[in-house]
Amino acid sequence: LWQRLGQQTKNGKTCSQCWVLFGMNSALSIVPRTLPLLCVVVSPAAERLRYILGDEDDAPTPTLFTEMDTLQHEGGELEWRESARWVKFEEKVEEGGERWSKPHVSTLSLHSLFELRTCLQTGSILLDLEGYSLPQIVDEVVERQVEDGLLAPELREKVVFVLLRKHRHQTKKPIHRSLADIGKSSSTSRLPGEAFCGLRPPGPGHHPRGLNGSSCANQVMHDSLKPSWRGTRGGFSELPLTHFVSVPESPVTPSVIPCSRFLFVLLGPQGKSKSYNEIGRAIATLMVDDLFSDVAYKARDREDLIAGIDEFLDEVIVLPPGEWDPKIRIEPPKKVPSADMRKSVFSLNELGQMNGTAGGGGGSGESLDGRFCGGLFLDIKRKLPWLLSDFYDAFHIQSISAVLFIYLGCITNAITFGGLLGDATDNYQGVMESFLGTALAGVVFCCFGGQPLIILSSTGPILIFEKLLYEFSKSNSIDYMELRLWIGLHSCFQCLVLVATDASYIIKYITRFTEEGFSSLISFIFISDAIKKMAGSFKYYPINRGYNPDYVTMYKCDCQAPTQGNLSDLPLNGTALDWSQLSKKECLKYGGSLVGNSCKYVPDLALMSFILFFGTYSMTITLKKFKFSRYFPTKLRKLISDFSIFMSIMTFVGLDMLMGLQTPKLIVPTEFKPTRSGRGWIVKPFGKNPWWMYLASFVPALLVTILIFMDQQISAVIVNRKENKLKKGCGYHLDLFWVGILMATCSFLGLPWYVAATVISIAHIDSLKMESESSAPGEQPQFLGVREQRLTGILVFVLTGVSIFLAPVLQFIPMPVLYGVFLYMGVASLGGIQFWDRIKLFLMPLKHQPDFTYLRHVPLRKVHLFTLVQIICLAVLWILKSTVAAIVFPVMILGLMVVRKMLDLVFSQHDLAWLDDILPEKDKKKKEDEKKKKDRKKSKGQDDDNPNPPVKIPMEPLVSSVSLAPPLACSQVNASASEREYPIPSFEPHAHD
Amino acid sequence: LWQRLGQQTKNGKTCSQCWVLFGMNSALSIVPRTLPLLCVVVSPAAERLRYILGDEDDAPTPTLFTEMDTLQHEGGELEWRESARWVKFEEKVEEGGERWSKPHVSTLSLHSLFELRTCLQTGSILLDLEGYSLPQIVDEVVERQVEDGLLAPELREKVVFVLLRKHRHQTKKPIHRSLADIGKSSSTSRLPGEAFCGLRPPGPGHHPRGLNGSSCANQVMHDSLKPSWRGTRGGFSELPLTHFVSVPESPVTPSVIPCSRFLFVLLGPQGKSKSYNEIGRAIATLMVDDLFSDVAYKARDREDLIAGIDEFLDEVIVLPPGEWDPKIRIEPPKKVPSADMRKSVFSLNELGQMNGTAGGGGGSGESLDGRFCGGLFLDIKRKLPWLLSDFYDAFHIQSISAVLFIYLGCITNAITFGGLLGDATDNYQGVMESFLGTALAGVVFCCFGGQPLIILSSTGPILIFEKLLYEFSKSNSIDYMELRLWIGLHSCFQCLVLVATDASYIIKYITRFTEEGFSSLISFIFISDAIKKMAGSFKYYPINRGYNPDYVTMYKCDCQAPTQGNLSDLPLNGTALDWSQLSKKECLKYGGSLVGNSCKYVPDLALMSFILFFGTYSMTITLKKFKFSRYFPTKLRKLISDFSIFMSIMTFVGLDMLMGLQTPKLIVPTEFKPTRSGRGWIVKPFGKNPWWMYLASFVPALLVTILIFMDQQISAVIVNRKENKLKKGCGYHLDLFWVGILMATCSFLGLPWYVAATVISIAHIDSLKMESESSAPGEQPQFLGVREQRLTGILVFVLTGVSIFLAPVLQFIPMPVLYGVFLYMGVASLGGIQFWDRIKLFLMPLKHQPDFTYLRHVPLRKVHLFTLVQIICLAVLWILKSTVAAIVFPVMILGLMVVRKMLDLVFSQHDLAWLDDILPEKDKKKKEDEKKKKDRKKSKGQDDDNPNPPVKIPMEPLVSSVSLAPPLACSQVNASASEREYPIPSFEPHAHD
Repeated sequence: LWQRLGQQTKNGKTCSQCWVLFGMNSALSIVPRTLPLLCVVVSPAAERLRYILGDEDDAPTPTLFTEMDTLQHEGGELEWRESARWVKFEEKVEEGGERWSKPHVSTLSLHSLFELRTCLQTGSILLDLEGYSLPQIVDEVVERQVEDGLLAPELREKVVFVLLRKHRHQTKKPIHRSLADIGKSSSTSRLPGEAFCGLRPPGPGHHPRGLNGSSCANQVMHDSLKPSWRGTRGGFSELPLTHFVSVPESPVTPSVIPCSRFLFVLLGPQGKSKSYNEIGRAIATLMVDDLFSDVAYKARDREDLIAGIDEFLDEVIVLPPGEWDPKIRIEPPKKVPSADMRKSVFSLNELGQMNGTAGGGGGSGESLDGRFCGGLFLDIKRKLPWLLSDFYDAFHIQSISAVLFIYLGCITNAITFGGLLGDATDNYQGVMESFLGTALAGVVFCCFGGQPLIILSSTGPILIFEKLLYEFSKSNSIDYMELRLWIGLHSCFQCLVLVATDASYIIKYITRFTEEGFSSLISFIFISDAIKKMAGSFKYYPINRGYNPDYVTMYKCDCQAPTQGNLSDLPLNGTALDWSQLSKKECLKYGGSLVGNSCKYVPDLALMSFILFFGTYSMTITLKKFKFSRYFPTKLRKLISDFSIFMSIMTFVGLDMLMGLQTPKLIVPTEFKPTRSGRGWIVKPFGKNPWWMYLASFVPALLVTILIFMDQQISAVIVNRKENKLKKGCGYHLDLFWVGILMATCSFLGLPWYVAATVISIAHIDSLKMESESSAPGEQPQFLGVREQRLTGILVFVLTGVSIFLAPVLQFIPMPVLYGVFLYMGVASLGGIQFWDRIKLFLMPLKHQPDFTYLRHVPLRKVHLFTLVQIICLAVLWILKSTVAAIVFPVMILGLMVVRKMLDLVFSQHDLAWLDDILPEKDKKKKEDEKKKKDRKKSKGQDDDNPNPPVKIPMEPLVSSVSLAPPLACSQVNASASEREYPIPSFEPHAHD
Repeated sequence: LWQRLGQQTKNGKTCSQCWVLFGMNSALSIVPRTLPLLCVVVSPAAERLRYILGDEDDAPTPTLFTEMDTLQHEGGELEWRESARWVKFEEKVEEGGERWSKPHVSTLSLHSLFELRTCLQTGSILLDLEGYSLPQIVDEVVERQVEDGLLAPELREKVVFVLLRKHRHQTKKPIHRSLADIGKSSSTSRLPGEAFCGLRPPGPGHHPRGLNGSSCANQVMHDSLKPSWRGTRGGFSELPLTHFVSVPESPVTPSVIPCSRFLFVLLGPQGKSKSYNEIGRAIATLMVDDLFSDVAYKARDREDLIAGIDEFLDEVIVLPPGEWDPKIRIEPPKKVPSADMRKSVFSLNELGQMNGTAGGGGGSGESLDGRFCGGLFLDIKRKLPWLLSDFYDAFHIQSISAVLFIYLGCITNAITFGGLLGDATDNYQGVMESFLGTALAGVVFCCFGGQPLIILSSTGPILIFEKLLYEFSKSNSIDYMELRLWIGLHSCFQCLVLVATDASYIIKYITRFTEEGFSSLISFIFISDAIKKMAGSFKYYPINRGYNPDYVTMYKCDCQAPTQGNLSDLPLNGTALDWSQLSKKECLKYGGSLVGNSCKYVPDLALMSFILFFGTYSMTITLKKFKFSRYFPTKLRKLISDFSIFMSIMTFVGLDMLMGLQTPKLIVPTEFKPTRSGRGWIVKPFGKNPWWMYLASFVPALLVTILIFMDQQISAVIVNRKENKLKKGCGYHLDLFWVGILMATCSFLGLPWYVAATVISIAHIDSLKMESESSAPGEQPQFLGVREQRLTGILVFVLTGVSIFLAPVLQFIPMPVLYGVFLYMGVASLGGIQFWDRIKLFLMPLKHQPDFTYLRHVPLRKVHLFTLVQIICLAVLWILKSTVAAIVFPVMILGLMVVRKMLDLVFSQHDLAWLDDILPEKDKKKKEDEKKKKDRKKSKGQDDDNPNPPVKIPMEPLVSSVSLAPPLACSQVNASASEREYPIPSFEPHAHD
């Protein structure tokens, strides 16, 4: 605090400059206090505020609820009727009085704010009034009014009469709910309908405001009462009657009794009702302003309140009348500047220029520990405290949908890769092994891994490696399983070495560029695979294009017996067969030939598959978006959105059953035995291959290790992305440790090897995203983070293991539906990628481009260039992936990192900070340079000649750095100060342009 | 003008009340001029403005273009660089300087506005400076500055040097385009890049501002120059240097030379650059404000400008800092309050409460003329002046898409109804007649009808009538064609009688309630028909559900010869036939039976039809929405949206051709001859039926007339809806006249009868909607109206007639595609209906409901009740329509009108005015009542006791009524005045609640 004040005095000189600047007009400078908005006056007001608020800043001010009542005629009787309310945002009672408007930002007129200011200056203000009931308060208020000479004594009775008229509140339901939400922090729950009357039951003991330990003050009433005096004969008070009453808190009051804290009364003649209404809105808006409500709580006198208004006016945002229609109700914004920030830096003018944070570091939280296994121990240390919450955090309905979704993805993957592996290895590893392996590896990893949100799966490169390995063993008469076991063991060992040496530190170099390139590539592979498989069904079930319904009699397919010569090959006696009764397969099996024009066609199945595929995909997409529609309550919509995949799968499985067509179905192995009959469940390490093979397998194992390491860690980086707001930290070393252990285990059991699968992991995270439930009406829900826990993953893999027994249920799921889910996964995982957003920019004309922060800071040309580089890299990777070189594909990621390194030469660090992240050594080097420079300078003793300040890449939101800045009250003065805090100074004068 | 001033003086007394109100604080009242925002001061400022602007209000002020330049270092050299520009909305140069931000509403800080005000008060102001070139102007400005003692003489050189630094403008392209748009009204086109230099070429003669006949002043430059003085050693001017320069217009200047009209210079020390930037933004925003720019043009001295700012400040809209983030760039609103309105009523505060107009009368422009054929003559008189423009207005690319779209709709309709009529009348009227009749009736109606946007077509009720009539004639051996001719003639006569007696006045009673009920019903019929037809194809092409691809050998369908006994019936010798070679039809024709398990199935066609149907529909919907996407330039998007139907039809026709499946195709008759061979082209009126039949046909003709009258007029009301903003007026009588004439003609030719078709007419209007091309960047396009012309209609029907020769092309179009188009039409025509919006409200929770104006004024309960009544009515109509009672269906519309009448008893007129329209006699009665009352009052001589003012239903937008209100400057005062203008005062105290 001392420093703050020190800063203030230091700036006194500069502030006096403002004096001169605005003091030119002599008329202005005479009465500075009446010019709240000029710099000269701001300083005292801000100083006053700092004094008021400064002493007990830690006690949070409760959220205020404000109600505006208007005096109206109801059936010949006067009554106060609620006409608007504020819980952060304004809600008006619509005409007809039966409906709350949508919460909207209060648009005030400057006029009314100034009138309000005058009202507070002239009206009577009673702070800390000790009133037990409304009549008592009213009495005191009117008494004071008369005392002050503001009210003629003969009108006293009338005013009291009017003020004590019945209060009618708006329908209770909606308000109650929102208040219940707000009141969460305190146990106070009150019926808003009794808000005003609530003052009547006197609490046992009312303390003065001195003891600020508020327990009940969370909901405070403030009523701006405005009579329109229709019907009442003649204006009995020509002057408006203004009271501002503050009632002290009553900590002892039972919590069910509401406590109105503030009361603002404005009485006046009939003609001014519109204007008074505006004044009422102004004070109500002020009261819900975090800063002003703080001031109102702590105000000692009238001047404090005026200072509060002045501060408010100084921060106010002004829309020119020609560019905005005041009739428009402005929707509450996604985010408002926090009150804390405003409290510490009193002027917002300079902050208006500040923007969000630059990318930030990719591998957050990853630190290089020199010790042996240091990283691993750190990971365990980091993860251990969360162990319990890793389970109970899962108890939410969302987890069910996540489990179902990921489960379906996993078994589809298991079946696909199982099938492919079976083909590649002559069923040494097949669907059965795939299921078992997935279940085993998944459960172990989710239980003990560093990042349990990662889903393990077989991946393409591993598949290709296995294929090559099998072909090699077969052609060289080497026992495949034994060789594979040794490779697995070596690879496991290598992984453990990598863990022990903290090699995962390399992920520091995986920036957004690399990460996005990799994940988009994987997404594209998902999409193209899904479409390819779909297109495959058109080949598998060819459509008879020339079919003419009229010539149905012409279409047939007969099985003809082979010519006599071949008959002898048949197991049965050929002649005994009734060839016309044979099915297609049987016919071909027995050497018959199919003759006819319908033999090679299969009706309906291809089109039906397409409908199922496309239907599942588009229904999922539509239902996902349903969250943002207006229909149904938020909870239901969220449920529908969460279960969108499950619902669309169910729908289209139902449709398929209804149609009864023989579309290709999901086939799960039903018997628990190795796919190839020759092999057992355990692979023996010795005996079949020569001894040198055990050592030589070290070389192929190296390839596998690199493959697994890259695949695993980059997926982990993507999962640990800062955008996901993970709270429980990452565990790269621990992850790799378990992947290594599982490698060895799976090799022993003859199961496939597993590694993190990018797309499914992203889908897992997406299905577990949490959003805040908005508290005040109109507040936008914020993305809070991901339900980080181990249970969903464990359940998914347990279910996968159990699937062998679920075959009767699973056999109803048509494959095209699952391909549709795959397509959705691929498209959805593209969604959050900045790279994809940037590609879309190519198609948008300049003026329609969305307002991305990086577009505000980086020239479009550079953005396009950056995107283009990424596209080219991706294309190269795609081509590589499509050839046999696919096996070196994860190694190519290293190539991406090299490309990224070269980009440093083309783009300025400023641009890269916005589009990508800064590479660590740049960062480090910069820091070191800085340090060195400083050291040198210190030694030389000169410190004032540094034209190009070193780049400061903000790793945290700038907000915090702003709040650390000295709180300069005079906005004229701190221009240079806040310029210093500007995100990334454009220190490079765009030399590359 | 006199009256205005009179009003003003009359209100003087009230205004002095404000004096007292705000005069309480003695400090405030001392220097009223320094408190621009309080009521006391507003009055003089507004008065001043009225004086400045009042004398020549008719000359429109040109749109201003404002550019803000900032002094910056560029390669060691100082230069002025454009940092933002304003064409109504603000566009900032983004960091990096290569990009314009999106146009957004300028959010200013109050602070900067006040600083600006001080600047203008203290800085030097040179109005009407006669400078030919920038150096000259700069010289004069600096000279003045020195004279005024604001600038030390020794700094003069420096300032001149700085001010004459190079000016660098932002990339030219986007700015040029937008300016070209703005410059439309004048021939002035200038390169913005030269904006600043443009002052150099001196015009031959510069006149003082006295002659205000501006020709070149449409684009005016104003530069707010703000130096940040980086690098320049030491603040050479501690004081900020402010100039406001206004250069007179030069009407003689060649139009290619741009004319900068205003120049605002602000020079100051380095530290304040942020604050100066804000001041620059403030003045720039002020300059593009319509009112202030007017003031700036006409200002005579400093005080005028200050008054302008004060007025601006008074109208400013204020957002509380806690509820809005100043970083958010606010998108320009759909509509801003017009400057004219602001000019006449200087305070917006009261207008903030005003809302849009209530429904307004349904049949606008329709008046009852007592004379014989009065309405008809009025219609012709109204239509005649537009005759020429009815043709040349059609020349726009949009018309092509409209023609294609409506043409396809029409021929589909013609084929559908033709087929049905053929069934119903044993081909007395068939597809051929349908095509011819559609073409004939359509061309005649579009050429001469009152509302050429209406599309004539066969409709359901007529079809049912024909069916019943044919059955009646057949069973009673009456000649159908002759009877029909006589009914047509009678009906024609009856129509003409209705025309002559101005019976169309009844449409006054067709309010939104009736109209929406009818059009939703027709839309539902469209939708259900499309879906039914689609579902039909699943029946027509049954799918073999149990098909197993493996048993392809089992599926066959053989034609078996009939048993011997039946063979003799055959034309050919039965035994000679090769039965296995017969097609399905031939087989059945010759009495053979189809044996086999694939006979009753047709593969692929049903599913393919579904894909075509659904694909066409969803692609059209998607492409229609494409207009609102961000991709591609606006023009291209609009084109895609306009041609969406055509494009999706083409796509799916292409897909169908690619697949080569025999989906059902559009079959157009190719030969020009009556469908039934027995009949000729002309029906003879006499000879076949007894004479009394000629007279008796009057009775059924009455039914037909009512049918046609209702069908026609209600469709016309829907087309003439006020929302469509038609400018050429309606022609109900003329429409009916031609419908009658066509009745007779068609009867003679034996063609079907035609009447306005709701859904296709709506589609016609929708496809011809015009939107303003936004002039200033960021301005939202406004719906301007419909391309009202006759050409598209004529072309559609000419094409329909020609279609008989287009059969080779049309035969590629599959019917499911056209059903998809029908589905789209039905869904799209529901789009603009308020009723449909209200149905959706049922599904929305209160807080998510959109901000419809009627929801602001009518309790939700009432809205729901009203909707429910409509739903019930619709359900009843739907049931009626589905039974034989369909023939009385149009008469049921009368029932709707009766229901509407009864609603008057349940709902208040206030609610109905918002949800529906007020029925005319209510209106009339009210007016009469009012009149009577007034008369009575006049006679009694008392005029002050009228507590419940009579309802005034605004038939025109309220804006105009506001501008007619006396321009009261003191917002405090005109509260009561504007309350008088409040849309519909809630005079009924909700007695029905």
